[in-house]
Amino acid sequence: MKLLSYRHTDDLSWGVLVTPDAHGRDIVNGRAATDGRYATLEAVLEAGALDHVATAITDAPPSLRASEVEWRLPLRPRKLLAVGGNYREHAQEIGMTEPAAPIFFSRFADSLVAPGAALVRPRVSSHFDFEGELAVVIGKPGRYIDVADAARHIAGYTCFNDGSVRDFQKQSIEAGKNFHASGSLGPWIVTADEIDDPTRCELRTRINGEVMQQASTGELIHSVGMLVAYASTFTPLAPGDVIATGTPAGIGARRTPPRWLRPGDVVEIDISGIGVLRNEVVDE
Amino acid sequence: MKLLSYRHTDDLSWGVLVTPDAHGRDIVNGRAATDGRYATLEAVLEAGALDHVATAITDAPPSLRASEVEWRLPLRPRKLLAVGGNYREHAQEIGMTEPAAPIFFSRFADSLVAPGAALVRPRVSSHFDFEGELAVVIGKPGRYIDVADAARHIAGYTCFNDGSVRDFQKQSIEAGKNFHASGSLGPWIVTADEIDDPTRCELRTRINGEVMQQASTGELIHSVGMLVAYASTFTPLAPGDVIATGTPAGIGARRTPPRWLRPGDVVEIDISGIGVLRNEVVDE
Repeated sequence: MKLLSYRHTDDLSWGVLVTPDAHGRDIVNGRAATDGRYATLEAVLEAGALDHVATAITDAPPSLRASEVEWRLPLRPRKLLAVGGNYREHAQEIGMTEPAAPIFFSRFADSLVAPGAALVRPRVSSHFDFEGELAVVIGKPGRYIDVADAARHIAGYTCFNDGSVRDFQKQSIEAGKNFHASGSLGPWIVTADEIDDPTRCELRTRINGEVMQQASTGELIHSVGMLVAYASTFTPLAPGDVIATGTPAGIGARRTPPRWLRPGDVVEIDISGIGVLRNEVVDE
Repeated sequence: MKLLSYRHTDDLSWGVLVTPDAHGRDIVNGRAATDGRYATLEAVLEAGALDHVATAITDAPPSLRASEVEWRLPLRPRKLLAVGGNYREHAQEIGMTEPAAPIFFSRFADSLVAPGAALVRPRVSSHFDFEGELAVVIGKPGRYIDVADAARHIAGYTCFNDGSVRDFQKQSIEAGKNFHASGSLGPWIVTADEIDDPTRCELRTRINGEVMQQASTGELIHSVGMLVAYASTFTPLAPGDVIATGTPAGIGARRTPPRWLRPGDVVEIDISGIGVLRNEVVDE
């Protein structure tokens, strides 16, 4: 399933993207299909109710077109963990030796904007950069999760733009990675059953159609399973938590000259088997 | 006012610590005194209702003894920002040059335990360390706050133990600073009107009664106002957010031999004008 969150008129809901019907309607209202039992995708995940949702929507016809709703973040992660230097060539381009353990940091949910919403270049910096990433959504709680068990804790996958303000990042990762409305997540969560192998996703980041980053998730230094396991060593993971797996080479800061994001730029994170996360940049 | 959160029998509430009455009762039930309007201290802060609370409790007698309640975290911060290397001698002891800008990182709320609750030394490390700190509680929302205006955004102050797992911290600040139940906050929030000058607090960290850290908050490299202003440059601050101001010299890791926390150790963060945050260490 492709799970999204949206607003339509005054209705905040979540839904499942399906094949369009004769009228072009392709969203099944998930809240209605489950008799209002789950107000949000977070609630679906907390209840471990993905199977219930899959059953409930089989008889529910789509009622809306994706083009007519306001897209929201599929979910607002309470914990959003991300890693630095997790692709070999990217570690090299930022002058980092290959890390023996994942280098984690975290982002506040309000540093993210919805699919299609504006990424904000802050007024205090012109060094605004993109980072396309595969993100993992936790479905089952756990601490000290074994690498071999990690897949069972994953509900699904989505695209992530770990938008970064590089001059502030030199002062602290926290500051550079947490500017308000500087990153993005979505457009939807693809449930894990639809991703045969998360090490075989092709990731591309485009600016205005031009490919800036291109890699396979098989190139991750620390695999999806390792990241889930390592993170759960220090912090309990819960449904709806998100782990972003790092960005490949090609960031704007390491180009000659640097390719900083400017107002009007359209950033796309395109991951095979998942979809395209698209955001335009605006000035604050 | 000294504002605390507690559980008594099945009642989760918050209260104000006052002079004991003839029966030794020293907690006014804040939720009852405000007719149930604010379920939590977070709700009090979000409503900007500290003045209302101050008025409401003047006629309310204390109904409980601090010794008979289960203390809870005064609040669970949605954003808990902390800084590294913000006292000169501590920056020196960890081999850091004095930072030109604050070095922020963040902690998840579930890395904290309540006053009096057990700090957990994780089973994966014996390098568990203490860091006594002054913490600032935000009372008024803001972004791009001026240093000169910062005081108006502060609701109060409390003590913070930025408990750290040093071997993991070498891998990432995030990991070392976010072990489950490794830090602590409290015992209460002292409202800002009772702290004449946050640069004149004397901070002491004791282990089993022995002073390990001792400093004045006047020694901060980046002042309370600077930290509030800088943090609000990248992230919007909201009522209930917490900014920890950094720890002075004397951490366990830099002693010869290192003084790691062990089960049975009692850690006290004592800040003049605020109070004493006390926690015992247990093994996971």
